[in-house]
Amino acid sequence: MVGAAIGGRLASLGHQVKMGSRHAGNEKALEWVKKNGTNATEGAFADAAAFGEIVFNCTSGGASLEALKQAGAQNLKGKVLIDIANPLDMSKGMPPTLSVCNNDSLGEQIQRQFPEAKVVKTLNTLTCSLMVNPSLLKGEHDVFMSGNDPGAKAQVSDILKGFGWKNVIDLGDITTARGTEMFLPLWIRLYGALQTPNFNVHIAR
Amino acid sequence: MVGAAIGGRLASLGHQVKMGSRHAGNEKALEWVKKNGTNATEGAFADAAAFGEIVFNCTSGGASLEALKQAGAQNLKGKVLIDIANPLDMSKGMPPTLSVCNNDSLGEQIQRQFPEAKVVKTLNTLTCSLMVNPSLLKGEHDVFMSGNDPGAKAQVSDILKGFGWKNVIDLGDITTARGTEMFLPLWIRLYGALQTPNFNVHIAR
Repeated sequence: MVGAAIGGRLASLGHQVKMGSRHAGNEKALEWVKKNGTNATEGAFADAAAFGEIVFNCTSGGASLEALKQAGAQNLKGKVLIDIANPLDMSKGMPPTLSVCNNDSLGEQIQRQFPEAKVVKTLNTLTCSLMVNPSLLKGEHDVFMSGNDPGAKAQVSDILKGFGWKNVIDLGDITTARGTEMFLPLWIRLYGALQTPNFNVHIAR
Repeated sequence: MVGAAIGGRLASLGHQVKMGSRHAGNEKALEWVKKNGTNATEGAFADAAAFGEIVFNCTSGGASLEALKQAGAQNLKGKVLIDIANPLDMSKGMPPTLSVCNNDSLGEQIQRQFPEAKVVKTLNTLTCSLMVNPSLLKGEHDVFMSGNDPGAKAQVSDILKGFGWKNVIDLGDITTARGTEMFLPLWIRLYGALQTPNFNVHIAR
């Protein structure tokens, strides 16, 4: 769902997008290609990673490290790797817990496993329709960004502005991904209390 | 600091407030009494807990269970116990980690240890000057509440409205305290990025 939303929005903005899956010819990926015109193609994770100048990790958090291994370190080398995944663990029932938190994060794990990629964690604090269309909510609201490379964060900030984001808050290096990943338990309780995923935080000052 | 802010605001609103410390006659408590007029008195934790119809836990998270033990289960029995503490662990350096999170919370630990108290977790997501004076920030912003007892939450909501809060979001039972306590790592990174503790979240919908 996240990949389809992000990829669809990028294609509609004129970017060429290759959706990666475990195997080329994935049924949902082919549907997505059909819907999104000539800018949209699909392939295996390694095909998508090799194709992209910028790579989005939209896999589920528990599968991200394995999916990125299939994508291939050599295909990620030197590239901006935008990580949107959250390490949600549903195996112990609902609501989910985090499989990593407090003194580490998925964003840091990915950066450690792929030291030559420029990992930027962002967009992981809200539902996918809002990621690519923030104007669906009334009033101001904010998106966060964590990463070690200032140039990579500047590129990501431009992409976010292209999606319609006005307030992009740079939290600092990739260790600050602990903050946004650990926001998920509050997000999940807010979803329960508000009975809708269509909300986001604004930092009032 | 949190106790002085909360207690001072309550005294100024006409409530009688007894500040508890490890021992009666604590120097900072005596200073606070001097500042806050005839509604303000001080004593040991047990004195304060016996005195109050409603009890606020404003101790540091790592000391809360011990302080409440000194306050005494019999003095907390049947009362609303408003828990504002966060289980921050500074022993491993900065930024702090949480000493409990993910599958438990300090709010739940307190509720389990004092099953006859009505624990309501609130105000733990912002700095103390804003807790008691939310109008210091421009625009709308929100405070959260977690607890098992609807009547206790209604009382807490009234107290919060007395402090000036317009948006009180009831997240659900005390397990939802995991959400607000796990927000602290993001709060800490925002404090670093914004270079001020004077901010709070608003949930845009």
